[in-house]
Amino acid sequence: MDTHLQPEQIVKQLAHFWSNNLPFNKLLGLTVTKFDCATSEVRFVWQNQLMGNPLQKILHGGVTAAALDLAGGVVVAANMIEQLEHKSPENIQQSLNCLGTIDLRTDYLRPGRGEEFIATAHIIRSGNKVAVARMEMHNEKGEHLAFGTGTYLVG
Amino acid sequence: MDTHLQPEQIVKQLAHFWSNNLPFNKLLGLTVTKFDCATSEVRFVWQNQLMGNPLQKILHGGVTAAALDLAGGVVVAANMIEQLEHKSPENIQQSLNCLGTIDLRTDYLRPGRGEEFIATAHIIRSGNKVAVARMEMHNEKGEHLAFGTGTYLVG
Amino acid sequence: MDTHLQPEQIVKQLAHFWSNNLPFNKLLGLTVTKFDCATSEVRFVWQNQLMGNPLQKILHGGVTAAALDLAGGVVVAANMIEQLEHKSPENIQQSLNCLGTIDLRTDYLRPGRGEEFIATAHIIRSGNKVAVARMEMHNEKGEHLAFGTGTYLVG
Amino acid sequence: MDTHLQPEQIVKQLAHFWSNNLPFNKLLGLTVTKFDCATSEVRFVWQNQLMGNPLQKILHGGVTAAALDLAGGVVVAANMIEQLEHKSPENIQQSLNCLGTIDLRTDYLRPGRGEEFIATAHIIRSGNKVAVARMEMHNEKGEHLAFGTGTYLVG
Repeated sequence: MDTHLQPEQIVKQLAHFWSNNLPFNKLLGLTVTKFDCATSEVRFVWQNQLMGNPLQKILHGGVTAAALDLAGGVVVAANMIEQLEHKSPENIQQSLNCLGTIDLRTDYLRPGRGEEFIATAHIIRSGNKVAVARMEMHNEKGEHLAFGTGTYLVG
Repeated sequence: MDTHLQPEQIVKQLAHFWSNNLPFNKLLGLTVTKFDCATSEVRFVWQNQLMGNPLQKILHGGVTAAALDLAGGVVVAANMIEQLEHKSPENIQQSLNCLGTIDLRTDYLRPGRGEEFIATAHIIRSGNKVAVARMEMHNEKGEHLAFGTGTYLVG
Repeated sequence: MDTHLQPEQIVKQLAHFWSNNLPFNKLLGLTVTKFDCATSEVRFVWQNQLMGNPLQKILHGGVTAAALDLAGGVVVAANMIEQLEHKSPENIQQSLNCLGTIDLRTDYLRPGRGEEFIATAHIIRSGNKVAVARMEMHNEKGEHLAFGTGTYLVG
Repeated sequence: MDTHLQPEQIVKQLAHFWSNNLPFNKLLGLTVTKFDCATSEVRFVWQNQLMGNPLQKILHGGVTAAALDLAGGVVVAANMIEQLEHKSPENIQQSLNCLGTIDLRTDYLRPGRGEEFIATAHIIRSGNKVAVARMEMHNEKGEHLAFGTGTYLVG
């Protein structure tokens, strides 16, 4: 990470990093499309290899869980960075190294059908040890496919 | 599905089907290695594309969730088939079409490091509408990486 | 239950029944204050016997879980009754006898301090076997204390 | 808390305190019957006021959640105390003040019928910020009534 950047540029770099340098996110085509310290959005498009049920052409539940987990992790990370006293790249990197999912609950509401999928997250608990985010996933028609709740270790 | 097979052969076909014909399971290399109406086992080996954190070479949380969901779904399916009065391929197929994950909770205990990963499931609630399974994931050294609980729609 | 009542009157009777005839709800002072087939509200006031931590005068986590479970169960019941073809008291009673909580997740966001507590629920999945509700709990100042998600067996 | 006691005596005092001085535990009759840094046990007997469904004489789901939460909290507390470098009453007290439930999942397996109920917990993740416990509840006949998973803030 370039150490001469401003916090905003670092945040932009992070979105790029999450979408392009994390192998599993890249495999699934998960793209971080927006985020701030309260909300985030992750998008991906249908690919046949994401199918969990070939008879019905619906997403595998693990794909949904992965997208929700990423959306939650991104908003938690942004919130964590926001709270850093010194937003140096070293401090940001150190914080991100500590970030981890403790537990994730996914509620599947409807079969995962669609051309594009949008996972959104907002932070519901922000602390110096633990943060909690709630997530939703819709398809391009606005059909609500899933809910999620994730608890993350921070700091 | 060949309609002249015995129930046991059908079950064998199913394990093959889950491992080889479901695109996302195949992408992840998830293999159903054993199952009966009470327990199941799913194995997969490390691949770089399953990485969630390139700095630390650990599994993406979505991979863990996908493996636990499959292990739970397999034992629930086997249990459901066991309870069918007439185990014809048509009845089995019809039952499987109704099977779906309602909710899944994953507890991440340790970073997902290892060469091979073993997800096991056992059924804890078996009903004619809903079944619940508990899952665990270990690596090849026996380190306990994750717990899961899944609620499935059956019948 | 009086069998000569209209569906609306039956629903009113139910709210009264849940608040007054279920011993544990009565012990906690849980009162069903409104509900329809999409949302519900349960209220209760602080009592010293609901304390989980005497040093800090905060609600026991089990009280929060009980209030969220009731709010979720009420909206699921109302939704279930709405979907009955024949809303006779017998059919309603039979449906209610089948209703049960499969699983409940409670996320505690802040210490449970307050004079009055308001649990609200809305239905997020409505089916003929399983329904899912999301719940929230606030205090009289509007502080958000807890979130919940409940999966219920219906039909 | 008497400051001249040995750690073991403090632990004994704690069990007494949890069972007798926490108003809601006392109301429900929850008694901490054993615990060490890896497992715990909480028992309580049937009382009509714990009824959730008067037609079927079964426990309210909130009672089950409360018992599981206590069992989990007790084993997490014992584990936390075990890890303290200086087990002075002041340090123990300070640690206990930080302890809180972050989230709790309860899986209801069977209707809560019985004369006595036994909730047990074991620790599955032990850290300096967060601990996770898994719980089970049986009745006096050994029937398995519920499972639980709790994530706790420590330290």
